[in-house]
Amino acid sequence: MKIGWIGTGIMGFSMCKHLMDAGNKAIVFNRTQSKAQGLVELGAELAKTPAQVASSCDVLFTMVGYPSDVEQVYFGKDGIFEGLEEAKEKGEDAHTARILVDMTTTKPSLAVRIYEKAKELGCESLDAPVSGGDSGARNATLSIMVGGDASTLEKVKPLFDAMGKSVLLEGPAGAGQHTKMANQIQIAGTMVGMCEALAYSKAAGLDLKKMVATIAKGAAGCHSLDNLAPRVIRGDYEPGFIVEHFIKDMKIALEESRRMGLELKGLGLVESMYEELRDKGYGKAGTQALVKVIGDEF
Amino acid sequence: MKIGWIGTGIMGFSMCKHLMDAGNKAIVFNRTQSKAQGLVELGAELAKTPAQVASSCDVLFTMVGYPSDVEQVYFGKDGIFEGLEEAKEKGEDAHTARILVDMTTTKPSLAVRIYEKAKELGCESLDAPVSGGDSGARNATLSIMVGGDASTLEKVKPLFDAMGKSVLLEGPAGAGQHTKMANQIQIAGTMVGMCEALAYSKAAGLDLKKMVATIAKGAAGCHSLDNLAPRVIRGDYEPGFIVEHFIKDMKIALEESRRMGLELKGLGLVESMYEELRDKGYGKAGTQALVKVIGDEF
Repeated sequence: MKIGWIGTGIMGFSMCKHLMDAGNKAIVFNRTQSKAQGLVELGAELAKTPAQVASSCDVLFTMVGYPSDVEQVYFGKDGIFEGLEEAKEKGEDAHTARILVDMTTTKPSLAVRIYEKAKELGCESLDAPVSGGDSGARNATLSIMVGGDASTLEKVKPLFDAMGKSVLLEGPAGAGQHTKMANQIQIAGTMVGMCEALAYSKAAGLDLKKMVATIAKGAAGCHSLDNLAPRVIRGDYEPGFIVEHFIKDMKIALEESRRMGLELKGLGLVESMYEELRDKGYGKAGTQALVKVIGDEF
Repeated sequence: MKIGWIGTGIMGFSMCKHLMDAGNKAIVFNRTQSKAQGLVELGAELAKTPAQVASSCDVLFTMVGYPSDVEQVYFGKDGIFEGLEEAKEKGEDAHTARILVDMTTTKPSLAVRIYEKAKELGCESLDAPVSGGDSGARNATLSIMVGGDASTLEKVKPLFDAMGKSVLLEGPAGAGQHTKMANQIQIAGTMVGMCEALAYSKAAGLDLKKMVATIAKGAAGCHSLDNLAPRVIRGDYEPGFIVEHFIKDMKIALEESRRMGLELKGLGLVESMYEELRDKGYGKAGTQALVKVIGDEF
């Protein structure tokens, strides 16, 4: 199997490497070429454009940044669909990508557009955003939320299994992205609750470790309290997940919500608090830095 | 040991009964006398006033409703402190309460006032709010968050152990209440996240059970998602914890925050959403009913 990989940032790099380690050939593309260099040294071919990747592999994965990047990589000049169309015109289909998999967290509606355009060209596509962050990508323990056709997932499943420990079909095209949005909406609430509880407790003079240990066992218990509160307590704002990316995800969820006629007030507030945090210079910090716009004492 | 118990509502009734089952004598008071009847049938003495309870027991527990009720029961006419003062004047101190324990969730500043007044009268006091709800009270699995002196807690510990499975000293007078506030602040965030994620997912056409099963395992995981989301999905809005009581707690936390110069925007928003929910007629519903002010589809 020859895979194509577009987007070799911190996560994409590890994910592509797992597929190569599993015995697949690879052709890769990254806007900043130097970030793909490590994979080239491991034997990957380097492409000059997304179009070239599309016309030179069996299954193509994308893991880029913003929805505008996804749009560009698929629909733009020298993009994936241009590559597929050109190859089709020339009749070169031996190694033309038959399956397109976008693993970026992006707009569900964009996932549907990719699915439809792929179908038009005789290809299949999946949206497959992940959770688990850098360490999940590095350790192949990602949770992969898939939208699309079950028959397509079946073909790609062995490749997903090399990158993650949980692979679930959530529904038709876009459902993977929608599930990821639900995930981020829950986290927005959990994070504001955690950071406000910490700010309150610090102002009240409580022993923060004791407070967290007490409430984490009961109805207030959550992953954030277990994993991020201890970092806040020791003043560690290094990113598991960075503020700017969380803002991106929340903006997508808010936009989708409005499109569906829903007003998510909690999410709207948390997103605005994270923008305030970014504007204070914490855009590259971990999401736990939210305490810095709540209490003066952090 | 003879215990006094004021406030024999759903939780107080079970908690007092555990102490009686452990072999303690009891004298009880409740504003609505009929609610204490079951305990009288089990052998408890019935008092006519809180003052009478205070002058007829060794350790006195209170578990009432609102901060105004706590205020009334301790500082009001025929209240606990009046009873203690009168008994002192008469020299009747054989069975005068030496330790006062307020288990109501109430204002931390009120807990400090009780502590100071008790000290003035030669008594000790603890604030000891709980989490775990009706079922925790019934099954003696409450988590008890204690504020006050360690030496006082040591004396009362065997009684707490008959009611709960976790008893932790959080700090000086008021620290039990502050910890409970931190608990409610975290839950406010967790709940709005959960309910908005459910509303979003329903509007997006996702399979809600599948969505919850997917996100509950990762960074979005929380007690609410595990325990309350399944209730929302099957349309069950019966209370574990009722909306009106949660509003009471959030109002206390907001008031305390303002007093400390903190603005908790997340908590303020969630409190206002719960008020909207109460005004729609859901004051006695479980807190998971919050979805009803977010999506039209629940």
